[in-house]
Amino acid sequence: MPYVNIKLTREQEPLTTEQKAALIKGVTELLVDVIDRGPTTTVVIIDEIDTDNYGVGGETITVRRNQKQ
Amino acid sequence: MPYVNIKLTREQEPLTTEQKAALIKGVTELLVDVIDRGPTTTVVIIDEIDTDNYGVGGETITVRRNQKQ
Amino acid sequence: MPYVNIKLTREQEPLTTEQKAALIKGVTELLVDVIDRGPTTTVVIIDEIDTDNYGVGGETITVRRNQKQ
Amino acid sequence: MPYVNIKLTREQEPLTTEQKAALIKGVTELLVDVIDRGPTTTVVIIDEIDTDNYGVGGETITVRRNQKQ
Amino acid sequence: MPYVNIKLTREQEPLTTEQKAALIKGVTELLVDVIDRGPTTTVVIIDEIDTDNYGVGGETITVRRNQKQ
Amino acid sequence: MPYVNIKLTREQEPLTTEQKAALIKGVTELLVDVIDRGPTTTVVIIDEIDTDNYGVGGETITVRRNQKQ
Repeated sequence: MPYVNIKLTREQEPLTTEQKAALIKGVTELLVDVIDRGPTTTVVIIDEIDTDNYGVGGETITVRRNQKQ
Repeated sequence: MPYVNIKLTREQEPLTTEQKAALIKGVTELLVDVIDRGPTTTVVIIDEIDTDNYGVGGETITVRRNQKQ
Repeated sequence: MPYVNIKLTREQEPLTTEQKAALIKGVTELLVDVIDRGPTTTVVIIDEIDTDNYGVGGETITVRRNQKQ
Repeated sequence: MPYVNIKLTREQEPLTTEQKAALIKGVTELLVDVIDRGPTTTVVIIDEIDTDNYGVGGETITVRRNQKQ
Repeated sequence: MPYVNIKLTREQEPLTTEQKAALIKGVTELLVDVIDRGPTTTVVIIDEIDTDNYGVGGETITVRRNQKQ
Repeated sequence: MPYVNIKLTREQEPLTTEQKAALIKGVTELLVDVIDRGPTTTVVIIDEIDTDNYGVGGETITVRRNQKQ
């Protein structure tokens, strides 16, 4: 019954329903494979965060993206 | 001064303002009742999560809802 | 299938097993009562935080406790 | 490589991009100043919460705001 | 640069260092495979929770384990 | 009344009480300075995480530290 929270940026091309389902399935299977925790009540929550609200290294992702271009 | 975070799915019929207020009031009172923690600075945050972003048992809630129908 | 996280300070007289069970039961029932969410997969996690690591109003709880005495 | 999550209410006059960048820069610098943790991989995430979903002292911020007026 | 938090119970036979490393590696690779997010700054944090502090379905994991025996 | 959660590794030389107090004071003041949010009910929680439980770039911090030596 682990709980997993994934936070990542909401990009211009947002995550598809299939990608979200694949992340949820993949994490749940990983927990079964590595530590044999029963998957039926494993909860996975994906938070999509605006790039203005997500910072790495003291800068927002918005700024980091613009610098790369 | 406990901090409580409630995460639940955003359904087609979303939570009403009254339901949110009742959850916040109820959790705060529960903490007073059970462990006598002063309620004035208790913080409660409710996160409503898209059913595509919330998984249980390796499947998104969207998929689980569709299977039940 | 809501997820609830309760964070509160670990006091000199720590929470008893009964108090923790009562919080978990109480929150789960509250969610059924207020929003009728099925309780079987509701997850509740209680984090007990050292008073040095918990701040309110810019001060640690340790300091606030000492000032009250 | 600390991780920082800031949750605050989304007000009628929402946070500007500049304010978010200043929060992310400020927290990252604070961690360098106080505990000398290398800033390059520090992650800061800001969650803006609806005032109906944020409670203090058993009441939503929406209600508290209205009472002050 | 996603952030992932895994919360699971601390069992009598606790997670080994190898299992934790495998979870961290596995989640990071999953995010690369499914959504092609660059792995260098992906942060994964594993929280091990006492079974008295972790509830599912209104009961602590401690109680649920005892009922199964 | 923002809520701030800081997660960082528990090092061999752990954070001092003074450093924790400085982080809590500093974050609270930053929120006042940048966005003028009243500090009295701001909550800050510091989680110290074992280096085996904290991963960046697919490796635990324990492993990354050993590689640097």
